[in-house]
This record gives sequence, structure tokens and C-alpha cells, in this order.
Amino acid sequence: MNITYQNPAQITKLLADLPAPDQNAIDKARARQAQLTKPAGALGRLEDLAIWLAGWQGCEKPAITAPHCIIFAGNHGVAGRGVSAFPSAVTAQMVANFQHGGAAINQLCALAGIALDVRALELDRPTQDFTTAPAMRLDEVISAMQSGADAIPADADLLIPGEMGIGNTTAAAALALAVLGGAAHDWAGAGTGLDDAGIEHKAATIAAAIKRNDGKALDAVEMLAEYGGREVAAIAGMVLAARVRRIPVLLDGYISTAAILPLWQSNPAIFDHCQISHYSKEPGHRRILEAVKMRALLDLDMRLGEGSGAAVAFSIVKAALATHNGMATFAEAGVDDG
Amino acid sequence: MNITYQNPAQITKLLADLPAPDQNAIDKARARQAQLTKPAGALGRLEDLAIWLAGWQGCEKPAITAPHCIIFAGNHGVAGRGVSAFPSAVTAQMVANFQHGGAAINQLCALAGIALDVRALELDRPTQDFTTAPAMRLDEVISAMQSGADAIPADADLLIPGEMGIGNTTAAAALALAVLGGAAHDWAGAGTGLDDAGIEHKAATIAAAIKRNDGKALDAVEMLAEYGGREVAAIAGMVLAARVRRIPVLLDGYISTAAILPLWQSNPAIFDHCQISHYSKEPGHRRILEAVKMRALLDLDMRLGEGSGAAVAFSIVKAALATHNGMATFAEAGVDDG
Repeated sequence: MNITYQNPAQITKLLADLPAPDQNAIDKARARQAQLTKPAGALGRLEDLAIWLAGWQGCEKPAITAPHCIIFAGNHGVAGRGVSAFPSAVTAQMVANFQHGGAAINQLCALAGIALDVRALELDRPTQDFTTAPAMRLDEVISAMQSGADAIPADADLLIPGEMGIGNTTAAAALALAVLGGAAHDWAGAGTGLDDAGIEHKAATIAAAIKRNDGKALDAVEMLAEYGGREVAAIAGMVLAARVRRIPVLLDGYISTAAILPLWQSNPAIFDHCQISHYSKEPGHRRILEAVKMRALLDLDMRLGEGSGAAVAFSIVKAALATHNGMATFAEAGVDDG
Repeated sequence: MNITYQNPAQITKLLADLPAPDQNAIDKARARQAQLTKPAGALGRLEDLAIWLAGWQGCEKPAITAPHCIIFAGNHGVAGRGVSAFPSAVTAQMVANFQHGGAAINQLCALAGIALDVRALELDRPTQDFTTAPAMRLDEVISAMQSGADAIPADADLLIPGEMGIGNTTAAAALALAVLGGAAHDWAGAGTGLDDAGIEHKAATIAAAIKRNDGKALDAVEMLAEYGGREVAAIAGMVLAARVRRIPVLLDGYISTAAILPLWQSNPAIFDHCQISHYSKEPGHRRILEAVKMRALLDLDMRLGEGSGAAVAFSIVKAALATHNGMATFAEAGVDDG
């Protein structure tokens, strides 16, 4: 059932042949929504979410019984360039915090009934500083992608890939600049709390990194190797493996969405089994979503990562399912349907 | 403890003397947020919500143990003018649907652990058609406001006033036009599903109603009498009584927010103990929120009423409390604080 990533060409082939949702289930779910005791369309995006889940689960009345959040943690060579308000040691400290239940994501998963797992990916072996060399070798990317695929529990029917990695908004910004173009300062934000001078320095760092390749076309694995991180590649690997298994995904914020851009470059349909949970306060996130034509569910000025925005957005998904599956139809309730 | 509404002058006096939140509790809650294991401000509006609740509950770590949604239902004389896609009989039919557990709000309250109550307000006695006469007498408004105050359960620590009433987007639009001005078509939307001609007719209906008073200054009770409905006045009465008792309120959409405009006209601070749960798809709602300088929590294209948007938004409030109360501090977790 699980996928084994082998080489860049195989991954390109997987991307070219993404499974589609079940149109018959979509049609049935849409017909059901039209009969429920409410004006047509009055539940807005809750209706869309229920129909989307019906398509990926292949049934008129979808259900989620095993939602999982998996946080991938990685360290970044570029963090040595002073692109973060926090030192790299914080990555491991926060992994311990996740394990002891003290972080935001722990509270949010407990509240929502989401199982939480943490995968620390070679924290003592940061990626290379990508201003001077590729962040990873191709085999390291494939290994990290495999970590993402392997982290999918057998019973999972909804996935939230989260991340922790000091310096990873810089990696996300570099990926966005490499895939979507524009100016470096379009993609460089405050991250964990840079001031204006820090943001300028971050933009210059990204611009220097991109200059190394000077417009050379890169496939998904090469792109992740140049600018990604282990946790970034793991998210890409999880999202692609989830698609093969038709498991819906709630993406979190800037880093999680940027991690998918190298796949999107190969096939824009990669986002079809994903919802974007929220608009991160990190300004590059909204630009990415405009480029890939996705609308996020929430807009709460969050910019924490960890999967936190997605854990909050899961409550919206639950509301969608509760109304879709539980409401009476006009006929059942004896209500005139206008 | 409960409030007794007596006359318009007393209500004006209550509005002039609204209680404020506890600044000491706000300061303590803000200081706590700064110590939690996350970059400063990274939880965005979740932090704001926790601090807001701290202020109204008067404690550093607020909790909600008894959230209540009360749906008020009323019928509208103006519905006889063909301003809705549904007949007035649907109001009572939907009340039965609420009582039997078949509506959207039933599923959403059950999901979120919100107690649900329904108050049908003289459904067999619609308000007057407000294009030709005031919708209600002043004593009818005060009686409906009292219904709202009396519906607050003794243990309630969060309130969601919901509504059902065929024709009530027209009442909401008339209130918005009377209080905020502008053009009639700024406030007339599709409601339960009007086509463009129906919306034009609705705008003309509202304009005719406003013309009756021709710019005459009206106090809160007079305004509700002219253009409101029983369920609209009940919501105003609940929100004012909740303020006196310092109980936070989640307002739902267009009708619930418009119901507060007559109070806001007397004292803009009336919204301080309220959150606006979502931007309704009814276009007038966003215009009201711009005018009263409130930002909604969600934007999900919902336009159902019943309190449905607020019941969904309650999950955001729960996420705010879970992180505020449950997260480890930097010191507790041994994480460098940047």
C-alpha cells in the first residue's frame, strides 16, 4: 500500500499520473446538500468541504475517524547566516516540547481529537547553507520524502503535515522565488520575529541562493535539493504519498505550502486533495496562494507553523461533516423548500 | 441578577453606562501569552481572543464551561410583500426542525458542546408591514427585548443569539439603512435566494419604509419598533443584558449584527463584549462591519443564520483557550526565548 520513492524520474512519473476524486460520489454528495433544510448554498464552504471529502473518500457521506498530525523537524545550514530571531538549538528544544505536550500543536490536537506524532530528521546534521551549495544531495531528498510517506499511519483518513525548523521560512522563501519568480523581498517575511533590517538581509540571502542556478530548469527533487530542508522534503513526500492513497490533506501555512511548489510545478493538480488551512501572517503565503489559485479556510493572523493552523481548521472540516451527514432533508422535516 | 427592561429612557441610560472589561486581567493574560513557547504574537487572533475573554471573565486564565445558543424566531409582516424566496410558514416549520434536531444549528451545537434552546416569539402574530406602519409598538419591543434577557441561563458563560424569521434580512437591511445611511441597494441582498429582480424589489421596499420617517432621529427602542422584528429585538435585549452581566457574546451574521445597530448608535462600545463570528455572504454584513470597525473571525461564505456561523466560530474560541491555558512557558519547557 505504501509508496517507495526511488529516483527523480519515478517521482516525476508519479506526479504526471495523479489520481482524481470520485465524480460519482461528488455528484451524490452535491445532490444531498440540495435537499438539506437550508437555503441552497447557505452553508457556503462547509458544503464545498463535505463534497470535496466525498470525492476523495468515494462515498456520499464521508467520515473522518483517524485524523493524524505529523510534525517533521529539520535543521538548516542557512540558519548560520542570521536569518532567524532564534538559534538552531531551538529546533531540538521544541521537539522535546512537542514530546512533553507543552507546545501549541499539542493543545490544538488534544482539543480536536487529532493524533500527534513527531519525526526529528537528523537534527545534528543540518542541510548545507544553500547560498553556497545545494542544501541536500538528491538521495538525501528522496530519503526525506520517504520519511514523509512512511510517517502516514495505516488507518489515517486525514493528514496534517506540520513542521519545525529554525531557518525554514528562508527555505520556503527560496523555493517560492525559484518556482514562482518575482523579487526576493516578495517572499521574505519576519518569520519568528525579524526586524526590517533582518528581513532585508533574508531577502538578500535568498537572492544569492537563487543566483547560483540562474534560471536553470529544475525538477521537483532537484528543486527540493537546492533550497529545501529535510522537513520540507518530508512534507512533499507525505502529500504525494497521501494523493496516491486518496487521503485528504490539510496543509498549514507558508512552509507547508511552499514545500508543495516543486510538485505543483510538475502538476498543478497536486493541490486537489489538499485544503489550505489558513492564510499565514507571513506575507509570502498569500502570494503563493494567489499564484496556485487556492483560497485558505481561515485568516487568523497565525504564523506559528507546527501544523497549528491546520489543527484549528480541522474543526471547520468537522462542522462540514456534521451538517452534511446529520441534517434533516426538507422531506424528512416537513419544511417547504421554497 | 437579571435585568428588567422598563422603558426607552431606562434602556438609553443602560447604554450610556456599559461596564468595561477588567484591565488587570487583560494585562496578566497578555503577559502570560508573551511567555508561552512560540514567537511573540505567532498565534495571532487566538491570542487576542484569549485576552479578550480574560477581560470579560476577570481572570488571567479564562474558561468556558457553559456555552449556550438561543434561537429566537419571529414572523414579519413585510414578508407579505414577496421579499423572501420562502413563505412565512417556514418559520414555524424550522422551529419544529430545531426542536426535532434536524437543522444545521443542531448538528453544530452538538459537535461543539453548545447547549441549544429555541424561543418562538408569537409566530402567529407577525409584526406590521413596516413599509406602511411601525413594525411594533414600543411596549412590544420592550417585551421582546425582555424575552432575550430572560433567555440567558443562570450558568451561561458564553452566549450565541441565533435567529429564524422569514423576511428578517429585509428587517436587517432596513435597520442598517436607517442607522448607517447609504443607498437601499447597499443593504439588500439575496437572503434565502432572491434573484436580481427580487433584490431590486427588496431594496425598493426598504427605501419606502425609511421614507416614512424621513431622517427623524430615533432612539434604540424606537428604531427597533420601526424596522425590527421580535427575534431582532430579543437579540438586542440579550446582548445588552449579557453586557450588564459581563458575559461574552458570539454574534452570528447579518441579522444578529444589524440587531445591535440601534444600540451601537447610542454607544459604539456595545460591541466590546462581542465577537463577530463570520462574514456573512449577505453583502450588507461586510458593510456593517466596516462601519462599526469590527473584523469577523471566519469567512466561509455562510448565510444561513440560526446562529450557525457563531457555533462554528466557537471552535476558534476553544482553540484560543486551549493554547492560552495549556501551553508551556519558555522557562517550563527549557526553550531559548530568542
